[in-house]
Amino acid sequence: MSEHLPTTNEQPLPDPSVTVELKTIVELCKARGIIFPTAEIYGGVRSTWDYGPLGVELKENVKRQWWRSMVQLRDEIVGMEQAILGPTEVWQASGHLANFADPLVECAKCHQRFREDHLREEQLGAEDAEGDLICPSCKADTLGDPRSFNLMFKTNMGPVETAGSTVWLRPETAQGMFVDFATIQRTTRRKPPFGIAQMGKSFRNEITPGNFVFRTREFEQMEMEYFVEPGTDEQWHQYWIDERLRWYVDLGIRPENLRIREHGEAELSHYAKRTVDIDYYFPDESMGWSELEGLANRTDFDLKAHQEASGQDLTYYDQPNDRRYHPYVIEPAAGATRATLAFLFDAYRVESAPDAKGELQERVVLKLDKRLAPYKVAVLPLSKKESLTPTAREVFDLVKVRWMSEYDETQSIGRRYRRQDEIGTPYCVTVDFDTLDDRAVTVRDRDTMQQDRVPIAALESYLAERLPVC
Amino acid sequence: MSEHLPTTNEQPLPDPSVTVELKTIVELCKARGIIFPTAEIYGGVRSTWDYGPLGVELKENVKRQWWRSMVQLRDEIVGMEQAILGPTEVWQASGHLANFADPLVECAKCHQRFREDHLREEQLGAEDAEGDLICPSCKADTLGDPRSFNLMFKTNMGPVETAGSTVWLRPETAQGMFVDFATIQRTTRRKPPFGIAQMGKSFRNEITPGNFVFRTREFEQMEMEYFVEPGTDEQWHQYWIDERLRWYVDLGIRPENLRIREHGEAELSHYAKRTVDIDYYFPDESMGWSELEGLANRTDFDLKAHQEASGQDLTYYDQPNDRRYHPYVIEPAAGATRATLAFLFDAYRVESAPDAKGELQERVVLKLDKRLAPYKVAVLPLSKKESLTPTAREVFDLVKVRWMSEYDETQSIGRRYRRQDEIGTPYCVTVDFDTLDDRAVTVRDRDTMQQDRVPIAALESYLAERLPVC
Repeated sequence: MSEHLPTTNEQPLPDPSVTVELKTIVELCKARGIIFPTAEIYGGVRSTWDYGPLGVELKENVKRQWWRSMVQLRDEIVGMEQAILGPTEVWQASGHLANFADPLVECAKCHQRFREDHLREEQLGAEDAEGDLICPSCKADTLGDPRSFNLMFKTNMGPVETAGSTVWLRPETAQGMFVDFATIQRTTRRKPPFGIAQMGKSFRNEITPGNFVFRTREFEQMEMEYFVEPGTDEQWHQYWIDERLRWYVDLGIRPENLRIREHGEAELSHYAKRTVDIDYYFPDESMGWSELEGLANRTDFDLKAHQEASGQDLTYYDQPNDRRYHPYVIEPAAGATRATLAFLFDAYRVESAPDAKGELQERVVLKLDKRLAPYKVAVLPLSKKESLTPTAREVFDLVKVRWMSEYDETQSIGRRYRRQDEIGTPYCVTVDFDTLDDRAVTVRDRDTMQQDRVPIAALESYLAERLPVC
Repeated sequence: MSEHLPTTNEQPLPDPSVTVELKTIVELCKARGIIFPTAEIYGGVRSTWDYGPLGVELKENVKRQWWRSMVQLRDEIVGMEQAILGPTEVWQASGHLANFADPLVECAKCHQRFREDHLREEQLGAEDAEGDLICPSCKADTLGDPRSFNLMFKTNMGPVETAGSTVWLRPETAQGMFVDFATIQRTTRRKPPFGIAQMGKSFRNEITPGNFVFRTREFEQMEMEYFVEPGTDEQWHQYWIDERLRWYVDLGIRPENLRIREHGEAELSHYAKRTVDIDYYFPDESMGWSELEGLANRTDFDLKAHQEASGQDLTYYDQPNDRRYHPYVIEPAAGATRATLAFLFDAYRVESAPDAKGELQERVVLKLDKRLAPYKVAVLPLSKKESLTPTAREVFDLVKVRWMSEYDETQSIGRRYRRQDEIGTPYCVTVDFDTLDDRAVTVRDRDTMQQDRVPIAALESYLAERLPVC
């Protein structure tokens, strides 16, 4: 697949006339209760977000599709879930305690701290430019020497606060798969190539979070470590680059909004032989091409590092050839939260559509893949009249057993259609006064806006044909 | 339902001959890679656990069933997900900063700290007995006065460690629903009675965690806050007690292992008008009756407290009667991790079963409800002979699309049946040499061990009839 997609960093921008501003997405999310600031009644916590009724379904659907493609549909990949709190030894061995840091300078006057490389870029034009810097807050020239600021959150476990009681909030899910490698390989009797997958929260004390849920200090990852025989690592790396691109396209992202970007030598992490990012073109001018997922060839760095630090044997015993080796690791590491944002952007459309009188009106529609849509079906009694309620309830009870659905009886049917379009509901099922006679309902398709009259007795199979198993 | 279950705290113990030791469950979990200590290669972190391939599926299935019963099958309850990290104001208003603490005494000699009430119970026979205590570790009589030790984990967000940068790992998911009450009520246009549900990690720095995943510092909750009109709260409280008991029984917990237990006046939390626990009888002598879920009538305590602290209006406007009120809240608060442990205990059976030669052998079988079983189907080629592989793969590819399944070709078919019994897989599908001629497979039922010969073309519908939608 990747051979059909641009693979250089110089790809021309997608159609510049297609612009969706970030603030439009943020407003939609707030208005519909999809995503909003955490503890908003107290003024919030910078760049930390809660997911409302629709947001939690959307994000869970993204995660479910990833798990389905990674774990359920494959024989050689299994899942796991590591504790979020972990001991110092893990992050010492992984290199995070030593390397996972940003250079900060502190102003002697106002005591605020800033990323030194960002100040150089802003004030001198380049991250590595030489020259004097001033405090961007109080404008004094009293910035100190840069000091390394570790991005991990730490806390203390147990009743006494001592060095020995320090635990860390994991900054990535990946290390769980290395630390538990031997236990999982042994209990599942898997042989390379095989993988271990994990989804869940990670925490990084980023100095400059921003762009809504794109860069947050609390975020959600979907990572898989694929253990292969050394020498086959480069071909498996390419395999997973292709596979992961295919996943985004299969779930509806327009291919022209995706690119793969090679890390240059200076950018490569200390553990990586080669790394490629999958970038998405966010059609907001402050965002543009931004990383959705990194695919790294981590070699045998992590297993060897944990073996050395723990004293435990983390080799794989290749019985037919009677040899032990440390598998190489290919890692597709995706962000669940930023993937959710990309799916929202890519699905957002403003269209002209005729209203009940045939006049063209603007409609906003989230053309989410049906597997990702928060609600699959909305059941709408034409009016609140009590005569419709029992049948509308009967229809809702029928569909909710199989699909996440909404029952909505407030406001005019036109407004309810527009509301369901805006949140991406693929099918609206309307119960009207004819239904009481003919036992049939009107099913409206979100994308085509075509309406079919379907007997209630055939509704489940009508929807099952159109809504994929997920 | 609850009228059919014992409701006193004096319920006679379930059949004492049915004993499953906790260590048996712990060993099964370790041997099969279901649950094991986190960072085990480094000696672990006390009472902190990772979930392996089967454990993560089992726990997710428990959560999915809860979400299905709470959110998907109901019209008036919606979901949400709050950030784990939150600001001080939330926990000040909720009362956690003031009240969520244990009394600790410190030994002046060895500097270890202990729960004072536990020491009184151990050394003097009752939590509130008067008398002198000695240090249980160094045996000195040098214990100091009790000090309140808050159970919340704290950390710092942002580049500077100051009081203003303190954030807390949430000790419960419930507060998210109160803090976001107004946003969610407004965007979903729900009217009381309506509920907001959330599942996810919470963190409590317990002094004495233990009993495997029953009491851990990092754990997972499934909580729902049900907002009702004052005056209807008592009847809704009873409704949810009945509903939640039904959920456990419906998912296979034997009713005689469940009881409801009223909190006495001294035990009631500061916010509660009435609280009832759902206890499960863990058939291990160190555990016995233990709480799975608490059901509290929280009154309007939380909404009023957050309104006062935040200055935001957290009333509901009752339009037909033109009045504003703070809804009362009924809270069914379940533990996902301890429910998972209860399902494991209740499903664990040791039976006698005839082997291939008709001789009785002991078999261990996890009689998990099919909706909870980690794998629904195992596909087992009778031998590793290459002639069987393509057909066995074809069968696996057929079933995996609909059900989480395993492909297992190592060791004898008898051992593989026993392995699948031990992990609770409802159906084993065996591909044998006859399959190559008759295009049929043998399907073995976990519980009855009966075998049916089923054409491959009919396999999907055969399984679909027997495996519930979930």
